Amino acid sequence: MNDARYPWVILVPRLTGLTEVFQLNDPQQLQLMKESNFVAEKLKQWAQADKMNVAALGNVVSQLHIHHVVRFSGDETWPAPVWGKGQAVQYTEAERDAVCQQLTPLFADLLHDND
Amino acid sequence: MNDARYPWVILVPRLTGLTEVFQLNDPQQLQLMKESNFVAEKLKQWAQADKMNVAALGNVVSQLHIHHVVRFSGDETWPAPVWGKGQAVQYTEAERDAVCQQLTPLFADLLHDND
Repeated sequence: MNDARYPWVILVPRLTGLTEVFQLNDPQQLQLMKESNFVAEKLKQWAQADKMNVAALGNVVSQLHIHHVVRFSGDETWPAPVWGKGQAVQYTEAERDAVCQQLTPLFADLLHDND
Repeated sequence: MNDARYPWVILVPRLTGLTEVFQLNDPQQLQLMKESNFVAEKLKQWAQADKMNVAALGNVVSQLHIHHVVRFSGDETWPAPVWGKGQAVQYTEAERDAVCQQLTPLFADLLHDND
């Protein structure tokens, strides 16, 4: 998510027309669970987060997607959820590239599995 | 959750000291995933919901727990997430009993599995 206030990764199953996790079949649910937990753990370690917020909401964009949001006890909206609070602070191009460069090797196993 | 605006079920793994789903071991993660998806699906059917919001936040109460919130496109805070929005409307005792009576058989398999 392009909001420099919170490191934020969204997983989107490459299946169209789904809106709820329970609509996935069993192997798909298992894969999503593993990938979601992997992303949450790696992100938390990387950011030295106080808490991860992991959520399937989909009220605005219905296509099934899972948010993984890094939270710090001193962040702008703590302890409230981040959605709809304040204005997103867009990354500069250099910041975005730097974050992507750091995250890509972190998620290499995941990306490789899905080639 | 005692908020009559939204049917709302919270699953709490009976394990103390955990704050993140990824801290569960593999069988525990699998069990939580199955139970969470079961609860979300049954609740959505029962309430004829437009969307389920499923989230592991834990910013206020750190003990690991998963929210399952029934959402309608016309509800009070749609499409925003429900947390921290407006004032909770407490169920009357009769309303609470009625909801519990309806939900208990819905979740009978789940409750039985965990005897």
